Formats: sequence, structure tokens, C-alpha cells
Amino acid sequence: MTTGVRRRRMGVEERRRQLIGVALELFSHRSPDEVSIDEIASAAGISRPLVYHYFPGKLSLYEAALKRAAEDLAQRFDEPREGPLGARLLRVMGRFFDFVDEHGPGFSALMRGGPAVSAGGSCALGTASATNALIDSVRQAAYDQILAHLDVAEPSPRLELVIRSWISLAESTALLWLDGRRVPREELQLQLVNDFAALAAVSAANDPKTATLLHTILRNEPIDGPFTEPLRRLGALAGIAGSAEG
Amino acid sequence: MTTGVRRRRMGVEERRRQLIGVALELFSHRSPDEVSIDEIASAAGISRPLVYHYFPGKLSLYEAALKRAAEDLAQRFDEPREGPLGARLLRVMGRFFDFVDEHGPGFSALMRGGPAVSAGGSCALGTASATNALIDSVRQAAYDQILAHLDVAEPSPRLELVIRSWISLAESTALLWLDGRRVPREELQLQLVNDFAALAAVSAANDPKTATLLHTILRNEPIDGPFTEPLRRLGALAGIAGSAEG
Repeated sequence: MTTGVRRRRMGVEERRRQLIGVALELFSHRSPDEVSIDEIASAAGISRPLVYHYFPGKLSLYEAALKRAAEDLAQRFDEPREGPLGARLLRVMGRFFDFVDEHGPGFSALMRGGPAVSAGGSCALGTASATNALIDSVRQAAYDQILAHLDVAEPSPRLELVIRSWISLAESTALLWLDGRRVPREELQLQLVNDFAALAAVSAANDPKTATLLHTILRNEPIDGPFTEPLRRLGALAGIAGSAEG
Repeated sequence: MTTGVRRRRMGVEERRRQLIGVALELFSHRSPDEVSIDEIASAAGISRPLVYHYFPGKLSLYEAALKRAAEDLAQRFDEPREGPLGARLLRVMGRFFDFVDEHGPGFSALMRGGPAVSAGGSCALGTASATNALIDSVRQAAYDQILAHLDVAEPSPRLELVIRSWISLAESTALLWLDGRRVPREELQLQLVNDFAALAAVSAANDPKTATLLHTILRNEPIDGPFTEPLRRLGALAGIAGSAEG
């Protein structure tokens, strides 16, 4: 295809970046399983053999795209350590849902059992563990960020459990949201911040360290903030208990 | 090896059941990856070729063991629909942690990305999706049980999200517990029941149907039950908010 504008030749790294971007764009609309190398080549405006020149197979392109996406997501966890914690977490949740929104089908396919991508019949077993390691590294980045914001260097086993299980709650909530988008994402972003406060408060009953931490945090939260407002509502519900007996 | 007692010959189904039981017993101490067919044969008291007579490979034995474990777990969700809901859920959590305790390494390996088991270099891709389907069927059984206990036939999208995301919270809490067992399981069983009430209460703020359901449930709970006690505690915490400004 000849056009008036002569096509500029890309360097190897530039071309690889372009192909990764094209792949991620296609994965944001359909599951990676359903996207062929032909489509990626066509969307990038190059030939299929040239794609294989930069990536030996769909699998290696998939892995490179996944790595880029993981780095992208981990960066969105960065948040200045200023102001009330609830508001900070709410901003991070907004960026997390931005990411999930942008990468919908790719995110779903990845989190629901890793890539079922095989390169021309060869085996993707090594990929499954590489993928899991990458997912775990993003979870770890999220965990480290939360600890840093909580200003805790050595969490108690119970606090660690609260944070890590809340991260998995955020993942599953986002996945469930993607399946039909039947609840506004803004509501779920706020709900997850509420959930964090609620789960921490439940765990604090058995953990003096978490209780002390929670008290310190709450003293610095606005009374109508996303950490404190749900606690008040939950307290009001407790008054209902046992009233059927009266 | 000749003993005084002549070894009774087993039928095909009986032998298959025995081998599945032996495999599950071995998987309860070490990850399936680390258990060889030789060990399974030895523990069952038969030859390696005879194992292959009943199961064409480690993969098919693994799949059969997984299926048995999934059925076992799903059965533990059965709970009579009598008495306060919080106490019912607490009994189910006890049996869930029994299962997790009994199947430790096998449960971990399964939930952390499916079986990395390959049968002599052949590819386990089909297994990954079969495994995911089996895990999803257990999750669905848990979901159906909870809906039945809540006496809800058509859940709102928000209630569905609360239940399904709580199920994933229970999974991740159990997995984190297995990693070092640094928190007593009885505490986590109760905590998960508390968490269910807390997550439902948070979501009820945006969902009149869930709010009505929660009110009905709480009216029939004892005031010191696992559904209501944490809500009171959470309410008390709300009073702390913003006190740093005073």
C-alpha cells in the first residue's frame, strides 16, 4: 500500500511498544483468546511475519502486554500521603476502576484462571505460573502502598490478613461489576472504601494493634467521610437486633 | 509381599475410589505437583502400572480427586434452615475451615492458579478450564445455599454482588490462614460471619431491598449473635471520627 506520506521506519523497541499497545487495545474489547495475530498485524499496519519478527508468538506478545498492563495498574496505586485516608483510598479506587473499565475483557480473562492462550498447540504451563507471579506482584504493590499510607512498618498477622483479603475483595468486586455493569462503578468505589473500614473494624475486636491504628485514623477523618459514615450507619442497625422478640 | 491375610481383589469402582482417597490424603500434606504416581501406588499397596490401569495418567487421577473434593466441600454447605441466620453461617464456616484444614496444600495449589500438573510433558490447558469450571460450581453451590437461607428467590444485583464477593473473601481469608496459620481459625470463622453482616450493611445503604432484608434478619437475631454484635461495635467507633479537630 503506497500513500503520499512515506511510512517512517520504527526502531525495534518502538515497534514492540506499538504492538503491545495495539494488543492491549484489542484485548480491551475482546478476550485475548479471541484475538488473532492477523488482527494485531492488521491493526498495527504491518504484515503477520513482521509481528513474529518482534514477538516469536502470540504468547510472548501476550506476556509483554500483560507486563505493561501490570506496571500501569501498579502505578495507579500511587497516591500522595496527604489528607484523610478515606479520601485517598477513594481516589485510588477511582483509578483502579478506570483501569478495569479500560481493560475489561483482558482483565476478566486474566483474573479468571489466567491466559488460556496457546501458541500453535504448544503448552502454556510456564505462562500460567509467570502470569500468577505477575498478578501477585501487583497485589503486593497494592499491599505495600496501603501499609505505607497506614504508616505501619510491621503489620500484625491480623492487619495483614485484613489488608490482603480486602485487596481480593476489591478484585472480585471489580470482576463482578464487569459482568453486566449492573451497579454504577462510582457506588462500588465508595462501597469498597466503606468495606475497608468495616473489615478493619471487625478485625480490631481481636487485635489491639489494629484497634489503636483504627482509632488514630478515625480521629483524623471527617465525620461524613467514607471511613466513618458507614460505621455510624452500621451502629444504627445494631439497635434492631432481637426486636422480633419484643 | 506375602502376608497371612490374602488380599481381597477390589472391583474397578472400588479401586478407583481407593486411589482417589489415597491421592487426596497425600495432597493434604503436599502440593499435588510434588506427589508422584509411584508414591500413590506405594501408599495404595499396588504397582505403578496398575494405577495407570485405573487412571490413564496423573492428570486424570488429579481431576477425579478434585471432583470428589469439590462434592465433599459443597455438601458441607448444607445446613438446616432453623434458628438465627448468624449461627447457621457460623456452623457452615466451621465446616468450611475443617475442609480447608484437611486439604491444606491441595486447596492452596488449586486456588492459586489451578493445577500445574502436566502428564509427562503433555499439556494441561484443558485441565485449567475444567478446574475453573469445578471451582465455579462450588462457588455457585455456596451462593445458592446462602440465597436459600436468606429466603430470596430473585436477588437484586447489589445483593448478588455482596454474596458473591463475600464468598471470595471467605476463600482468600482461608488461603491466607493456611499460609502460616498465624491466627486461630475459630476467630476467622466468626470474623467471616461478622464480615458478611458488615458488607451487607454497607451495601444496604444503596439498596432498599437489601436494607429491608437485613432489618428482617436482624429482628430475629439474638442481640449478642455473630450478626449483630459487630454492628454495635462498629457504631461505637463512628463516634471517634473527627475528634482530632476538637
